Amino acid sequence: MLRWSPVELASRIVKSKPITYNFATGSPDPSLIPIDEVRRSFENVIERYGVSTLAYPGAGGLKELRIEVSRYLSRALGIEVGWRNIIITSGAQHAIKLLSQLLMRRRTVVYTENPTFVETVMPMRFQGVRLVGVPLDDEGLNVYELERLVKIHGSGIVYVIPNCHNPTGVSMSMDRRKYLIELSEGYGLTIIEDDPYTPISHEKTTPLRALSDGVIYVGSFSKVLGPGLRIGFLVITDNVLRSRVEMLEQHDFSTSTLTQYIVYDMLRRGVIYRAMEKADDVYKLKLNTLIDALSRYMPGALMYKPHCGFYTFVNLGRNAWDVLKESVRYGIAFVPGDGFYVEKPIVTSARLSIGTIPIDRIEEGIRLLSDVVGRG
Amino acid sequence: MLRWSPVELASRIVKSKPITYNFATGSPDPSLIPIDEVRRSFENVIERYGVSTLAYPGAGGLKELRIEVSRYLSRALGIEVGWRNIIITSGAQHAIKLLSQLLMRRRTVVYTENPTFVETVMPMRFQGVRLVGVPLDDEGLNVYELERLVKIHGSGIVYVIPNCHNPTGVSMSMDRRKYLIELSEGYGLTIIEDDPYTPISHEKTTPLRALSDGVIYVGSFSKVLGPGLRIGFLVITDNVLRSRVEMLEQHDFSTSTLTQYIVYDMLRRGVIYRAMEKADDVYKLKLNTLIDALSRYMPGALMYKPHCGFYTFVNLGRNAWDVLKESVRYGIAFVPGDGFYVEKPIVTSARLSIGTIPIDRIEEGIRLLSDVVGRG
Repeated sequence: MLRWSPVELASRIVKSKPITYNFATGSPDPSLIPIDEVRRSFENVIERYGVSTLAYPGAGGLKELRIEVSRYLSRALGIEVGWRNIIITSGAQHAIKLLSQLLMRRRTVVYTENPTFVETVMPMRFQGVRLVGVPLDDEGLNVYELERLVKIHGSGIVYVIPNCHNPTGVSMSMDRRKYLIELSEGYGLTIIEDDPYTPISHEKTTPLRALSDGVIYVGSFSKVLGPGLRIGFLVITDNVLRSRVEMLEQHDFSTSTLTQYIVYDMLRRGVIYRAMEKADDVYKLKLNTLIDALSRYMPGALMYKPHCGFYTFVNLGRNAWDVLKESVRYGIAFVPGDGFYVEKPIVTSARLSIGTIPIDRIEEGIRLLSDVVGRG
Repeated sequence: MLRWSPVELASRIVKSKPITYNFATGSPDPSLIPIDEVRRSFENVIERYGVSTLAYPGAGGLKELRIEVSRYLSRALGIEVGWRNIIITSGAQHAIKLLSQLLMRRRTVVYTENPTFVETVMPMRFQGVRLVGVPLDDEGLNVYELERLVKIHGSGIVYVIPNCHNPTGVSMSMDRRKYLIELSEGYGLTIIEDDPYTPISHEKTTPLRALSDGVIYVGSFSKVLGPGLRIGFLVITDNVLRSRVEMLEQHDFSTSTLTQYIVYDMLRRGVIYRAMEKADDVYKLKLNTLIDALSRYMPGALMYKPHCGFYTFVNLGRNAWDVLKESVRYGIAFVPGDGFYVEKPIVTSARLSIGTIPIDRIEEGIRLLSDVVGRG
């Protein structure tokens, strides 16, 4: 049940080869990480809070940070919630692990988009859940298909990435969002909304959590402020569950007090809003450049119409792991798509990311990739 | 099965009361945390590694840090191990949670000292293990009693804090250490050695891991460099288990890349060795002051002869939670001891820590505490 993620496996094939065209990584663009502001915030908090920044973290996270996160949620995402309902975690991945341990047992039914982000599904699999894949299309999760499946498999948890989906790039339409909330109420489904990309998205969509207080929201600052800080958070309205998450957090106490203070100061000073705007412009341009290049050199390859975020999901027409092995020789990296499926994997699929690749290499990279694919 | 730790519960009783005599916390002395060196290391790594310090952490941890940890282990603790066998975690607590998830199942037998550190036992309980308490005395874990219990309950895992034990302060004698290794080989016991206090201990003892490669060693930099960095590590010789821990670490990816770089730089510059020496002197003095004060004002209260570290374990003669509630009115805090027992809790016991209390308040605090106890 323990396995390496395909992102990790792909990175091993790539390892020690010079990569000029990196379509593999979900990391943010290094040129957009506000490193000078991180530096300034570090100085600020050391000056102001001294050794407190190096003390043990408390349950639920730093109060000052939770208050700033609640302001950020209101201003940036339209989510109104008190600071006590926000739990700081070591990134979104840690948040999802905690939820998996608390809400998921052997044979718990978990509905996910198919394909979905494989790394967040790993801690769910480890709990022994029964994953049920729900197809998605250009309007996001197919909620009618979800309803049909719920009638067969019964109630459970819906794990969904409604905004700038990983690995397909689609966002759910408003009609589908509303219908999903209706379904959750009608069938007693628990919704976990994983939302790392809204902060860098040019199309501000309404998070599910803004439509219903019952949704468990997983947020992250990794894509805007830097993943190495490991600061994410959970929004949980239910006080019993919230308290249970805080108790479970005692079992690892893994969130750095220092980086909590740094992110607190960056929120307080409004750095995040400036970083979001900049990210917005750049990633939009990069994603459009990728889409254009695909339509030019690999027409018909796109399996979904990407809306925002880092990803496109394409069909290469032949085994993607074979293509990867050949393309690394030309300095091209990507992640084969089969590992993103919870059922019926398509071995010719691949995820192409614009996260870190410089914009002026995207077209060239796709042209070369199309050559490699054509040669097979 | 989820519960608040008694340390947390005690801190709630204490909360918002002015505490002059804090015998409760296991935090290190703020005056010993090398904050200026943390600052300098932050500047160094930002200068030298730039945005890499804010990138996603990799499986197993930062290679540079793992190499420095292997040097540190050789120099400071007499443990010789290659860097690949070291896994960086978000503090020792996170390491123990990962081990619990991998090695412990419902009804796995886990032998622990009784009493033991309750917070590290929580993730084990969460797995549904069967805890078997083994008595300890001034020579540490009673290995002969352990052998007797193993014959009854069968093979399993031994979770042990052999150096500067929490909550009693005792260290295992060399004879007992050797016998424990023999037992582990004879009965197929897996030993987990939890060792946060050796770095601040004036009596350098030989870790179990230095006696046998089979021991799983859990280390921490929290007590010397600052717990808010959340950097600990595991030493695992077995390659299969090591690889499984790394895979499981993908499920939370919780260790900050930035604080890994900071600790790396502090090890590289030798800051840790200077900090260890200073800690050594100060904590030794503080612990002796506490022991002297106890023998003067509360003769006979000490339940074990403390050897090193932060803790003494005492018998207050009446319910420790009652005493705590009264003593907070005099500005005294400590942690009642019953929660540290895995079986047969003694409700009159209490853990007194010299972690953060200034040395010149220790005697006065104990005098006042003895008054409160006497008044009951």
